[in-house]
Amino acid sequence: MRYSLLFPKTKKEAPKDEVSANAKLLIRAGFIDKLMAGSYTLLPLGFKVSEKIKKIIREELNKTGAQELLMPLLHPKNLWNETGRWEDAKEIMFQFKKDDKEYALSFTHEEIVMDLLRKHISSYKDLPLKVYHFSTKFRNELRPKSGILRGREFLMKDLYSAHTSKEDLMDYYWQVARAYLKIFKRMGLNAIITDAPGGVFTDEITHEFQVPCKVGEDTIYTAPNWERAKNEQILTENDKKAAGLKQIKSIEVGNIFPFGTEKYAEKMHGQFTDKNGSKKNVWFASYGIGITRLIGTLAEVFHDDKGIMWPESVTPYQVHLVHIEDPGTEPRVKEVYEKLTDAGIEVLWDDRDVSAGQKFSDADLIGIPVRLVVSKKTGEKIEFKKRSEENSELLTLEEVINKLK
Amino acid sequence: MRYSLLFPKTKKEAPKDEVSANAKLLIRAGFIDKLMAGSYTLLPLGFKVSEKIKKIIREELNKTGAQELLMPLLHPKNLWNETGRWEDAKEIMFQFKKDDKEYALSFTHEEIVMDLLRKHISSYKDLPLKVYHFSTKFRNELRPKSGILRGREFLMKDLYSAHTSKEDLMDYYWQVARAYLKIFKRMGLNAIITDAPGGVFTDEITHEFQVPCKVGEDTIYTAPNWERAKNEQILTENDKKAAGLKQIKSIEVGNIFPFGTEKYAEKMHGQFTDKNGSKKNVWFASYGIGITRLIGTLAEVFHDDKGIMWPESVTPYQVHLVHIEDPGTEPRVKEVYEKLTDAGIEVLWDDRDVSAGQKFSDADLIGIPVRLVVSKKTGEKIEFKKRSEENSELLTLEEVINKLK
Repeated sequence: MRYSLLFPKTKKEAPKDEVSANAKLLIRAGFIDKLMAGSYTLLPLGFKVSEKIKKIIREELNKTGAQELLMPLLHPKNLWNETGRWEDAKEIMFQFKKDDKEYALSFTHEEIVMDLLRKHISSYKDLPLKVYHFSTKFRNELRPKSGILRGREFLMKDLYSAHTSKEDLMDYYWQVARAYLKIFKRMGLNAIITDAPGGVFTDEITHEFQVPCKVGEDTIYTAPNWERAKNEQILTENDKKAAGLKQIKSIEVGNIFPFGTEKYAEKMHGQFTDKNGSKKNVWFASYGIGITRLIGTLAEVFHDDKGIMWPESVTPYQVHLVHIEDPGTEPRVKEVYEKLTDAGIEVLWDDRDVSAGQKFSDADLIGIPVRLVVSKKTGEKIEFKKRSEENSELLTLEEVINKLK
Repeated sequence: MRYSLLFPKTKKEAPKDEVSANAKLLIRAGFIDKLMAGSYTLLPLGFKVSEKIKKIIREELNKTGAQELLMPLLHPKNLWNETGRWEDAKEIMFQFKKDDKEYALSFTHEEIVMDLLRKHISSYKDLPLKVYHFSTKFRNELRPKSGILRGREFLMKDLYSAHTSKEDLMDYYWQVARAYLKIFKRMGLNAIITDAPGGVFTDEITHEFQVPCKVGEDTIYTAPNWERAKNEQILTENDKKAAGLKQIKSIEVGNIFPFGTEKYAEKMHGQFTDKNGSKKNVWFASYGIGITRLIGTLAEVFHDDKGIMWPESVTPYQVHLVHIEDPGTEPRVKEVYEKLTDAGIEVLWDDRDVSAGQKFSDADLIGIPVRLVVSKKTGEKIEFKKRSEENSELLTLEEVINKLK
């Protein structure tokens, strides 16, 4: 991709109404644009990051036997009434009336999945069921101020599973937990599994995936003899006296909820017939990962004072090719661009007629992990520099391709 | 994919509240599920079809230099007020108030793109701009009864372009028209470009892509000496007297709108500075393709009394492998499944413990273009039959793979 054609270009100044590093960096570098408080467009660079994140999640969830589908965003009131959440979650849901019908916008999809399930599942042979989608969620956050870490509208992956027994549910639950750790690890994030309360979702203990980060809205606690970390809300007076207690600021990038049979299956008649012919409630769970929140988390965790530093697995392009416009170097940079592209490497080529200084500072701001320079000085070689390192080296095109593949 | 694990299975009966063939077939075969009037879940099979459609559209639009992004679905009233469409499109839009703020759900995105553009475009050097996304649209259809041909909530690809001149806009406009014809052709659909009025979008003549279909909601007219077909609404008294006039029932699968400068750019100050330093309004256009509507159109156009007949380019799986459970054939069907999968062929393997008759009728209903049978009778060979043909042939596994690659 020629940078001259990419929409839009970097900005010198961060918008004055943003306070978070993630929003400032992602807006300046051209990854997102703010439509209104808590609502952002994923611009072409940001969209590419979201697609790479989705690909990693798909790969890991498909391995657990989960199937992808896509559920609607506009929901009828009656389904939300069956579980009582039309009232219980009134604060956070966007609810409205049109032509005498009442609707809610999706803030989650448990009721929708349970409705699907009761229509299509009859026997124990139809279980377990594991379905997920990537879709938009709407939550009426009162004062969103953390950029894309907390939005009124955001992208989420939500997975739902239904089982014939508690044992089968918990087996799968921890299988998903391990898949989540792997997903975050593949993006360079070390998530900590944390015990937490279930909010409007469940009265059971649930688990959050927390990434340590100084600006995180959450606080978690760890102690050497605890199996898992604990969320602030769940901490008892006794816990506070634990030996070696550590307090960590963090961002919640995922959460998993082992509902059991009561809150959803029983209220909505999500049932199956067991081997003996009796009707039983399904054992139900749900599992979320915030996609846009992950983009924000990556920007918070991986940046320096010059800009973002994308992990290789989710970078919008693998290489940022900077051309210093010395006379006679044009054919060479074209050749480099084409050979890299032919080798299957995703290249952002800064072909603009601007100063070398601006190109270098834009490359640092955008944060692609490898910067290549072609200029008179580099001659037949190419300057190769990692975004995360100070030193550069001169390599042949072949050596560059070998390093990148 | 083992069919025993796929969610959900086929249904014997079509739901009584559906009248359209597309909804009846797609629901019975397990591609979609109805949440409420005009709103459907894309189940795993339907989701796969939508992903294949998206891939074709992406490939053709990227060739025109368009860039993919993702815009929000919840919009602030103020942007819709700038063009007057908050009032003009009140009937079709879902508008609501929450905590004293007024919102609309996306029924289209012209205002959102124009807002993006005026924030990020300044010079003629930043144009043309060509951006698109796949996203959800909400329209308050009063009596949706055509299955997924017309929904209250549906998936759409919308592309927007902005240019420095009318000439550049119209060049690109017809380039997109050609890309559209190619997109539909790749799915086996012969779309007819049709002159039409612009509705709440524009006063200009616009163009629809109409696929002939007996149950289509639209009627178009062609005549041998007309350059293009005409939509019913645009037909004059004079047109009705044309020699060789033909009336065709059809489904609108795409539309393109050459707005010009007035309706959006002028009202919303979408401007650029030209080579002489003067401010000019951008020349603007938008281009839509209904993704869920295309799935419905394909089901309407490609079915017989036994079920759906997917074109190869958008089928959820390439091959439906039916195993007749004769003793001793189990290792062979596993081998066939694995070798096909290893060869990169997408296989739906009916491994259920049900009768051969049910497997065959389910295969016809689901409509995957190739059916393979492994049984005692087929021995070392495999029965190969196209969904669209009566005859089958016995082939070796190698021959099957060669035919499919």
